[in-house]
Amino acid sequence: MLDYKLLEALATVMESGGFERAGELLGLSQSAISQRIKALEVRLGQPVLVRHPHLAATPAGQRLLNHYQQVCLLERELGKTLPTLEVATPRLRIALNADSLVTWWASVVSDFCQNEDVLLDLVVEDQDVGLKRLRDGDVAACLCASDQPIAGARCVPLGQMTYHPMATPAYIERYFPDGPTEAAFRRAPAIVYGPHDQLQHRFLAQCGYHGHFPYHLCPESEGFVRLACAGMGYGMMPMMQVPGPVARGELTSLAPGHALEVPLYWHFWRHSGALLERLTSTLRTVQLT
Amino acid sequence: MLDYKLLEALATVMESGGFERAGELLGLSQSAISQRIKALEVRLGQPVLVRHPHLAATPAGQRLLNHYQQVCLLERELGKTLPTLEVATPRLRIALNADSLVTWWASVVSDFCQNEDVLLDLVVEDQDVGLKRLRDGDVAACLCASDQPIAGARCVPLGQMTYHPMATPAYIERYFPDGPTEAAFRRAPAIVYGPHDQLQHRFLAQCGYHGHFPYHLCPESEGFVRLACAGMGYGMMPMMQVPGPVARGELTSLAPGHALEVPLYWHFWRHSGALLERLTSTLRTVQLT
Repeated sequence: MLDYKLLEALATVMESGGFERAGELLGLSQSAISQRIKALEVRLGQPVLVRHPHLAATPAGQRLLNHYQQVCLLERELGKTLPTLEVATPRLRIALNADSLVTWWASVVSDFCQNEDVLLDLVVEDQDVGLKRLRDGDVAACLCASDQPIAGARCVPLGQMTYHPMATPAYIERYFPDGPTEAAFRRAPAIVYGPHDQLQHRFLAQCGYHGHFPYHLCPESEGFVRLACAGMGYGMMPMMQVPGPVARGELTSLAPGHALEVPLYWHFWRHSGALLERLTSTLRTVQLT
Repeated sequence: MLDYKLLEALATVMESGGFERAGELLGLSQSAISQRIKALEVRLGQPVLVRHPHLAATPAGQRLLNHYQQVCLLERELGKTLPTLEVATPRLRIALNADSLVTWWASVVSDFCQNEDVLLDLVVEDQDVGLKRLRDGDVAACLCASDQPIAGARCVPLGQMTYHPMATPAYIERYFPDGPTEAAFRRAPAIVYGPHDQLQHRFLAQCGYHGHFPYHLCPESEGFVRLACAGMGYGMMPMMQVPGPVARGELTSLAPGHALEVPLYWHFWRHSGALLERLTSTLRTVQLT
């Protein structure tokens, strides 16, 4: 049997961001925490965390943390039948795409979290990395655009989000006076989320343009919208992310006929317990547009 | 002299997210791109990129990319005096904190980018990692809360952002009926940005509470706000990030007397040229509240 005091020390260090604070939270000295981490590393024969460039769990450490979380979830189910146990609230670690997080996610899961007394540990990742985290046991579930199945996991389709090429009217007047033409695409700055974001490229291909185009890189979903609202570029956005700017006429589509559908899938471990099953039922109720 | 065709291939692969697309953009075959990357690695004696878990530059590759960017910036200055050269628009790589990106950043730099014909490559990082990227030559500038100077770089104070503990009125009524008490903090879920985010901890310490508290982890600035607006928790936010929810009465402070000031500093290489000097002058005009 593992010594769960050691795992608890590791989890507390990672969550609180340091040995000193973990000691405070657990009522232990900083050196007692260090000893527990060291004992875990001796037992495992390899490091469980690195301190540089910043505190992070090693892949082995992350697997331990995930196992620790699963045990906490089981304790929680036990605690429901034995309330006098007073078990701690577990945190559910989930990888998801940024656009879901800044649009529908919170309103759909809020009641679930409050009624079930669940805390979330959200990890924002593009789909390839999110699915890899699920495969590695680093997260309990993953919300992404890929329907690629993971052995041992279930994959539930949740619908699709519709992306439109949005910009300010002034921007469109300046860069697209004749509509979405090749000449305009060649010089109008776009906004791209990151090297893995192909939505702008797909939109351009849909318009028949396959050449070079200038773009800003902005790996933050809301920052992306702010750049567009400030007139710095155009970018593909789900309409549900920008109801305010659209209603106020700050953002509009530069090619109203063109939109892209991005499907969303929910992947989770098949035998991860009743809690994730209930969260899945909740997510199935989402109405995407 | 370096062979800049090789560096251009590396930069295009990283920006476009793949060898095939880089080939299309540069009018080369995929294998020609591979050969250029390989030639660069032979010259350097080490890899410049890794393909798993996803395409990323190695530390050595990032230094090459940064050097390539600096050369592009110099070419741009040259192009202003010799317009017939027709040099490409450079991309300025900047690390910044998420809260600035989703609030004032775009409105302050928008005119600068349009007038100077500059594209941005934004990297969202907490301050320790952002400063390390600057030290490593991976970014040209860094906006963060640390005034820790970097040798060879200038550090300009831009003011400070004020953070308030915000939640929905219903949440406050449910969890804080008697105000910010120890009993309430022990069971009211907070929202924390990540393991390095100590704002909630500092707020609790300011209220005289130093114990354990439950919290969701949400590493996305706008997702953080959405969780709070959905009634899932309270969290420290700059007032300028939530003018809408505050005006509509959706979010309010749970402890109006308590706020935290977070300073902002702009770090950039001293000899990085006139463009960064002009961007710095622009940033100095920001009015933070």
